Amino acid sequence: MSQEFNPWFGYMGHILRINLTNHKHTIEPLKKDLVESFIGGRGFGIKILFDEVPKGVDPLGPSNKLIFSTGPLTGTKVQSASRWIAQFKSPLTDAYCRSVGGGFFGAELKFAGYDAIIVEGRSEKPVYVWINDDKVEIRDAADVWSMTTYAAQEFLREKTDEKARMVTIGPAGERLVKISALVTDDMRTAARGGGGAVMGSKNLKAIVVKGSKKATIHNEKAFDEAVKEQIETYRKNPAFEHFKNLGTNSIVYLFYTIGHFPTYNFKQLPFEGAGRFTPEILASYVVKHNGCYGCMVRCWKTFKVTHGPYAGIAWDFPEYETHWSYGGLLGNCNIESITYANMLSDLYGLDTISTGVAIAFATELYEKGIIGKSETDGLELKWGSPEAMVELVKRIALRIGLGSLLGEGVKRAAEAIGRGAEKYAIHVKGLELPAYDPRSAKAHGLSFATSPIGASHCIGWNKFEIMGIPRKVDPFGVEGKGEITKYVQDETAAAETAIFCLFTLTNEMVTLDLYSKLLYPATGIEKFKDPRYLWLVGERIFNLERIFNIREGFDVSQDTMPERILKEPVPREPSKGQVFELDILLKDYYKVRGWNERGIPTKEKLKELELSEAAKELKVA
Amino acid sequence: MSQEFNPWFGYMGHILRINLTNHKHTIEPLKKDLVESFIGGRGFGIKILFDEVPKGVDPLGPSNKLIFSTGPLTGTKVQSASRWIAQFKSPLTDAYCRSVGGGFFGAELKFAGYDAIIVEGRSEKPVYVWINDDKVEIRDAADVWSMTTYAAQEFLREKTDEKARMVTIGPAGERLVKISALVTDDMRTAARGGGGAVMGSKNLKAIVVKGSKKATIHNEKAFDEAVKEQIETYRKNPAFEHFKNLGTNSIVYLFYTIGHFPTYNFKQLPFEGAGRFTPEILASYVVKHNGCYGCMVRCWKTFKVTHGPYAGIAWDFPEYETHWSYGGLLGNCNIESITYANMLSDLYGLDTISTGVAIAFATELYEKGIIGKSETDGLELKWGSPEAMVELVKRIALRIGLGSLLGEGVKRAAEAIGRGAEKYAIHVKGLELPAYDPRSAKAHGLSFATSPIGASHCIGWNKFEIMGIPRKVDPFGVEGKGEITKYVQDETAAAETAIFCLFTLTNEMVTLDLYSKLLYPATGIEKFKDPRYLWLVGERIFNLERIFNIREGFDVSQDTMPERILKEPVPREPSKGQVFELDILLKDYYKVRGWNERGIPTKEKLKELELSEAAKELKVA
Repeated sequence: MSQEFNPWFGYMGHILRINLTNHKHTIEPLKKDLVESFIGGRGFGIKILFDEVPKGVDPLGPSNKLIFSTGPLTGTKVQSASRWIAQFKSPLTDAYCRSVGGGFFGAELKFAGYDAIIVEGRSEKPVYVWINDDKVEIRDAADVWSMTTYAAQEFLREKTDEKARMVTIGPAGERLVKISALVTDDMRTAARGGGGAVMGSKNLKAIVVKGSKKATIHNEKAFDEAVKEQIETYRKNPAFEHFKNLGTNSIVYLFYTIGHFPTYNFKQLPFEGAGRFTPEILASYVVKHNGCYGCMVRCWKTFKVTHGPYAGIAWDFPEYETHWSYGGLLGNCNIESITYANMLSDLYGLDTISTGVAIAFATELYEKGIIGKSETDGLELKWGSPEAMVELVKRIALRIGLGSLLGEGVKRAAEAIGRGAEKYAIHVKGLELPAYDPRSAKAHGLSFATSPIGASHCIGWNKFEIMGIPRKVDPFGVEGKGEITKYVQDETAAAETAIFCLFTLTNEMVTLDLYSKLLYPATGIEKFKDPRYLWLVGERIFNLERIFNIREGFDVSQDTMPERILKEPVPREPSKGQVFELDILLKDYYKVRGWNERGIPTKEKLKELELSEAAKELKVA
Repeated sequence: MSQEFNPWFGYMGHILRINLTNHKHTIEPLKKDLVESFIGGRGFGIKILFDEVPKGVDPLGPSNKLIFSTGPLTGTKVQSASRWIAQFKSPLTDAYCRSVGGGFFGAELKFAGYDAIIVEGRSEKPVYVWINDDKVEIRDAADVWSMTTYAAQEFLREKTDEKARMVTIGPAGERLVKISALVTDDMRTAARGGGGAVMGSKNLKAIVVKGSKKATIHNEKAFDEAVKEQIETYRKNPAFEHFKNLGTNSIVYLFYTIGHFPTYNFKQLPFEGAGRFTPEILASYVVKHNGCYGCMVRCWKTFKVTHGPYAGIAWDFPEYETHWSYGGLLGNCNIESITYANMLSDLYGLDTISTGVAIAFATELYEKGIIGKSETDGLELKWGSPEAMVELVKRIALRIGLGSLLGEGVKRAAEAIGRGAEKYAIHVKGLELPAYDPRSAKAHGLSFATSPIGASHCIGWNKFEIMGIPRKVDPFGVEGKGEITKYVQDETAAAETAIFCLFTLTNEMVTLDLYSKLLYPATGIEKFKDPRYLWLVGERIFNLERIFNIREGFDVSQDTMPERILKEPVPREPSKGQVFELDILLKDYYKVRGWNERGIPTKEKLKELELSEAAKELKVA
């Protein structure tokens, strides 16, 4: 154990900048300011994006940047802290976007010696990047272009290293489908916001990494003790067992019963098929358990389909969100078809949430007679039709017929279709809603409305309302919701500097207190000793993301909800009669946030967060 | 180099017997008699099958045996000699069957120390066999049962060894589909005759092998010289370049023009789409070259599909036969759909020849009104419909609706349907015809009629008629066809003791002269020094296969052709007006074979072949 000064304990000290226009790369030193103010991961990404991507760039143009970051705990023995994060201006929302993925790519990137990669420019021809420690090559990808993620990955391992890790795009990303995902070699996705299309627009098929380095730890004894405490905390937490046994599939049926898992494009009609999604039934499909680098939870399960027209598949299971988006949201309870469509989405590189919402949107338009068989090329779009769902997944990925329009996201698709279609487009800021009903958990919904990336469940998953953690709160009430929304949003932003997995935050398997106990001995940076500083950095990140969007022209009018959520009372228990009281919630939230009534951070808040300089240029406050 | 006596130079000296009923295995010594009389591979298999499988066993019952053999040159530096062969009583034909596969399984099996494996009995529950040199385990396969070949292979490598090689079945074999295949980890198939169903009937998902041994060579110097000669012969042969560049795809269009690639279920109407199958177009799909163990030809190509509804695939290309069975035979020229259906067939484990012929059969029945939408569950079966073809491949594999019947093979399907369906069932002895028209090459067809396994193009590929090798012969003539049919049948049987690849025989890249030059120094067995002995062993094998069938009740009436081939003159050039003159051809052939008019070997022939004992028991001659 070394105790001498090293500014990069916990870090690798390098940022890799790859310019695809001129096929050059540079390795830049990590700066102390950046580390102290933003810690890592999501902090690095928004700071770099804010500083380097000017206002108004075309998200699919060469001036947009795609930033992949790791954190100071990535690749260490800390549990659940080795995720990777992609940040970019989103082609789906035209706003800031952060999208997080798991697997082994984050750890491998760090082992190669980098705290972040900045991808900029646009290659004339398809390429992939091969990073082998300090050796970085931009290579021709003609062979693997147009292949599914999985096929391309097999080829790329052969061309580089059998143990290489990678992030790839599939045919959807290549076709600039705006709901396309970034997909790792182990089928972990950073799916939301169209990162796949950003990568596709740069003609970049994959980033392939192999590394042999390791970050040094400042105080190994204290670090090891904190890790031990973390492991003990996990073992005592009932959520650990739930996630270990069945991952997010343990909550599918439960969440339906508490008013989430919104059915039939958020019409929220009773869904008879919900009983197919119990933990007992879903567990019967599991044939393998797996997990990310450095995580004892091992929440990935492999599903096997043994009968029916999708028999033969053994694939990474549909998460809670996907059982919903390809299931309950469409009135479909055919688990086999959901598993199959999930596989197609991984292969083509699609966001299963946005894709499912787009299919639900089309299905409701078909039901309402707004579109017909001429628009669907003869496909009958019925609620509860696995065949139509699977077919539309394919058409969206490959831009075939109506699929091409749906792949633009429901906001743009509704605008193009007109005829009142907008009413059925369930999104915030262009990002499709996930598997929660804002009417059934108001602070959770408030976070959808105010999230910088649009309707994301990950930006501020409200454990107060949903889990009663750290204290129980009435999910239907509107009082005090600003405060708890800010709490989870800031906490998440802070934890995503590590980069911790959200699943460990929602049950307090990880807290910012614990993070601080791990981070300080890892890095030796004095500031990180106090958990309150981590809270502050979380808030700083969240506010800088807000400022990014304000610079892009976003205002209070986009902190909103789809008409259905605002006006249609939920027809089923336990949320019967509930609507989403946007105005009350928003007013409270802005106040708690220290934002003015136009949703802009006040001068005081900016000063407190040391963001005055960033905001000053914009004259926003 | 050792020159001392070793009875097993070239061989491993062991046969592994696996009994799935009692989950025991024994390692038995290879016997000198067996080696000297039958050499290896196909010779071993028929001899063991004949001796051990009694008359009349249910092919899908525990008493049928599944024999996998290697040859004395397998796993050595000899080129193109490392294939593996599976032999069994076929559930499709109720006759003897031999089915040959490539890849690395054969070499690996030999490296594990075995010249053959005999699989017998039936496990109560799904199992796989894990052979790691002398360590043999019969393991539970509950996890991988019902998975596609590829998914199961990934799982099995994880459970055994990352470098293990294997033969697996897919969902089709598990469902006892009678046209199901045996599929290696590199997607090489031993597809014909329903080996997949035999394996499935035994509840055996896979045989997984890893070996570390090598056969010793008797005279390394002479052996190396012969190998050098072989390599030089290859380099001088134009066929080498053709196969190396594009594999069997180099001949697709050519064979259409010379009267093969029979279109529209052998109606042989002109096929406009044939122009899509030129070498130039097919080459444009290739993204990778690959090959079997110890073969410099590397005739496998990977196809990539970049556009249309099947975009994203990168898969082992459709061979000549598959471009035909999923293409021209159905009037379909959509290469992308053929590639996709080929992939499905590998994943589900189907024989693409029989599957395509079954689909063509159904399509013609639909055209003739013998079946309608009620039988097809609404599917419109039209010539040239990629969608219907792909859907039927899936239904056949998974036994859905009409697919269940078609998976029994066209013979049984026609019997079940009645109403004159038999007229459109293109098979011999129950085995569907391959991509050659017997009316366009009479000796080639004569081999279909007389092959012990049914209409196989591999049992006696007539290079005289098709290639003009070793001498040019009029393909339409009937004179002298018995002799050249016997020639290629015996030669093939002999070469399949090695086990040489058929592709090297058809162009005389390999001859029995060369085989002898390789085999004698490899084994040191005096008898093998004379190529005439190899010819004799080939004839012995072929005749013992015949006797096996006679014992099963086959007679001259099954040495026949479908009605269409016998009666309908070919309507297109260059074979316009041709029919297949069965009686003349058969009479000549029997005579040349030394068989009586009932197709039974004469006493003299049996004596010459040292098969009197085998035949005596049957009282056949």
